[in-house]
Amino acid sequence: MIDFPEIENLTRKTSSRILFVVVDGLGGYFDDSTNKSELEEARTPNLDKLSRESACGLSIPVDHGITPGSGPGHLALFGYDPIKFQVGRGVLEALGLGFELNENQIAIRGNFALTNNEGVITDRRANRISSDKSTGLIKSLSSITIPGFKINVELIRDHRFLLVLTGENIAPDYYPFVYDTDPGLNGLKPLTCQPTNKATKNIADAINSFVIQAHELLHDNQHANTILLRGISKAPTFPSMQKKYKLSPIGIAAYPMYLGLAKLAGMEIAAKNTGFAEEIESLKSMIKLNQHDFFFLHYKPADAAGEDGDRRAKVKALEDFDKSIPDIKNIGADVLVIAGDHSTPAVLASHSWHSVPFLINTSFTKADGQGSFSEREFRNGSLGLIKAKSIMMLALAHAGKLKKFGS
Amino acid sequence: MIDFPEIENLTRKTSSRILFVVVDGLGGYFDDSTNKSELEEARTPNLDKLSRESACGLSIPVDHGITPGSGPGHLALFGYDPIKFQVGRGVLEALGLGFELNENQIAIRGNFALTNNEGVITDRRANRISSDKSTGLIKSLSSITIPGFKINVELIRDHRFLLVLTGENIAPDYYPFVYDTDPGLNGLKPLTCQPTNKATKNIADAINSFVIQAHELLHDNQHANTILLRGISKAPTFPSMQKKYKLSPIGIAAYPMYLGLAKLAGMEIAAKNTGFAEEIESLKSMIKLNQHDFFFLHYKPADAAGEDGDRRAKVKALEDFDKSIPDIKNIGADVLVIAGDHSTPAVLASHSWHSVPFLINTSFTKADGQGSFSEREFRNGSLGLIKAKSIMMLALAHAGKLKKFGS
Repeated sequence: MIDFPEIENLTRKTSSRILFVVVDGLGGYFDDSTNKSELEEARTPNLDKLSRESACGLSIPVDHGITPGSGPGHLALFGYDPIKFQVGRGVLEALGLGFELNENQIAIRGNFALTNNEGVITDRRANRISSDKSTGLIKSLSSITIPGFKINVELIRDHRFLLVLTGENIAPDYYPFVYDTDPGLNGLKPLTCQPTNKATKNIADAINSFVIQAHELLHDNQHANTILLRGISKAPTFPSMQKKYKLSPIGIAAYPMYLGLAKLAGMEIAAKNTGFAEEIESLKSMIKLNQHDFFFLHYKPADAAGEDGDRRAKVKALEDFDKSIPDIKNIGADVLVIAGDHSTPAVLASHSWHSVPFLINTSFTKADGQGSFSEREFRNGSLGLIKAKSIMMLALAHAGKLKKFGS
Repeated sequence: MIDFPEIENLTRKTSSRILFVVVDGLGGYFDDSTNKSELEEARTPNLDKLSRESACGLSIPVDHGITPGSGPGHLALFGYDPIKFQVGRGVLEALGLGFELNENQIAIRGNFALTNNEGVITDRRANRISSDKSTGLIKSLSSITIPGFKINVELIRDHRFLLVLTGENIAPDYYPFVYDTDPGLNGLKPLTCQPTNKATKNIADAINSFVIQAHELLHDNQHANTILLRGISKAPTFPSMQKKYKLSPIGIAAYPMYLGLAKLAGMEIAAKNTGFAEEIESLKSMIKLNQHDFFFLHYKPADAAGEDGDRRAKVKALEDFDKSIPDIKNIGADVLVIAGDHSTPAVLASHSWHSVPFLINTSFTKADGQGSFSEREFRNGSLGLIKAKSIMMLALAHAGKLKKFGS
């Protein structure tokens, strides 16, 4: 369950407020020439000072050696065992767009992509084709028909779209029931959708039919000549943070998927913001309203830069984040958590399995002895090297929201 | 199971002796002004020297963020998964008093308490009313009758008493089958006893009837005008340390509950001692008798001081404990474990979730590089940050009592 069994018997409603900041792709890795990680290279005086007043540690997003997607990365931080509570990317995107899925619907994350004459993918993101251009392509895709299925295609942003298939008795509850067509790397060919067992062959057939028709519609387009599909999934039902933790939680983010993740954990979600500065303004209003006691605040730029393999941009994104710390620190939360859903080392240009620094700050926490906010320093923090799913338990403990276990 | 599955296939009887010292509430937290923990502040030259000859680490009593009661705290140290092996406080108190529970009996921990005119609890412990005064109140409570139940009320000490209800087919085996009437905090009203499901409504009714009658008997008493009940439970049957570890274990303590815990794990228990000095004398006699190969020795004062929020007293309790180390070290055990069931930071005046230093000393162990016995130093010990339930496995291993696993 939500990390501790029958946690609802231990949690109690209190007036204390938890601000849980997730720096997407927070962790990094050492650079060849400097032997410094992005966090070590970045000038982060505010985070460094905060580290000296906090309980510090390193988190393992899912398990040793496991590189998480955004779904498990975030669910773990909300205290959900990411191995038990799995969710497809399609569902996350749908939730983030405010598309309410029912049990007869399958949600799929699509990318517009580019392939060469041999059908090999040259860019999984079609040079991050702009929303302006994608809108026309979405219109084309909406004309596709598959007998027995209703089709919705919605623009997410740039090269990203949501595909929803509606049918009857459409798919089983488990995930995955069919595999992705997106091989996840450039230089490979798109995959044919395969069922995970015989019972879901009809769904795989429908998806392959959609892809073939999409490729026929797009194949002469210079910006994006095909599509890649992944995260083919139905909406799961997870126990809510309200019920399990007795919290009134709200999620604040600038990108739909993270709001979708928040929703899955039962959070209310704030209106989508355009960037982190606006997120902080939203947060301030929420705090003033005094209707919530848990605030999930999402910072995206560090991950985006890491994914692009742009070390300098990642360092800058971390430095930018650091500048917001005084505001965050003084916003009125009793417990401040700063954590990351996973590492995104620029040197790998992708998510990774490396452990991620995190801290918990309250007026009660004192110096762990860590001089600065970094992967290396936090190795010796008082909270140790722990699974990310345990951070939520520590946050609740520091907020006085957990009763004693046993007598 | 007892932390490793089918551990009985790995354990072997040997002549080596394990002395397992539990310093109750051993861990602490950093002070505002000094940024030192109680252990860091205490002068503990003997523990510091021992640390330099031992394998050291930090233990997580139950799980990250979870604050344990004495039950799970101790059971974990005996190698029992404290989440799987749950036991009510009532049962622990009964066992510790030598009250042998049968399957038709429910044991309940009671507190004499004080409420104000509005019925709000002003002191859950009735100013720790003395045993002298409690004895008269116990006599009053013994006059209460509930149709279908036989009632025993026994003084534990000061404000604490044991209530045993005897009936037929009295309650199911699981725990909890009814909830506490003690809300756990001053400033709240006592709770009505609620069943955890329909089948146990009759027990809740009996308990509520007892509470109402008790309140009528006591309500004009200036020292204690009501009672609070918790840990309403039946005796569980746990696999014994004899069977699982092939040990002949004995428990030595000055307070009944810890003897009760030892009994639950299958230990013999020594006659109750009046303090730690007497416990050590008991231990010496036991060692001479040469009938046991596992000795659980309990040190209480550090926890008591921490619970009272008395930092200076806690530091002194740790310094007092330190003075007994030479005696303990030379008592004739092959493996010496020093561990704590949980932290009790004086700054919190309660048990807490913080990790707890522990060490294992044998003639074979060498310096881990830890200069002193403290939370901060032990972070970097060779045994790492581990669940408390694993310490027993390490103790057995160091005692040569574990065979190789697999070929």
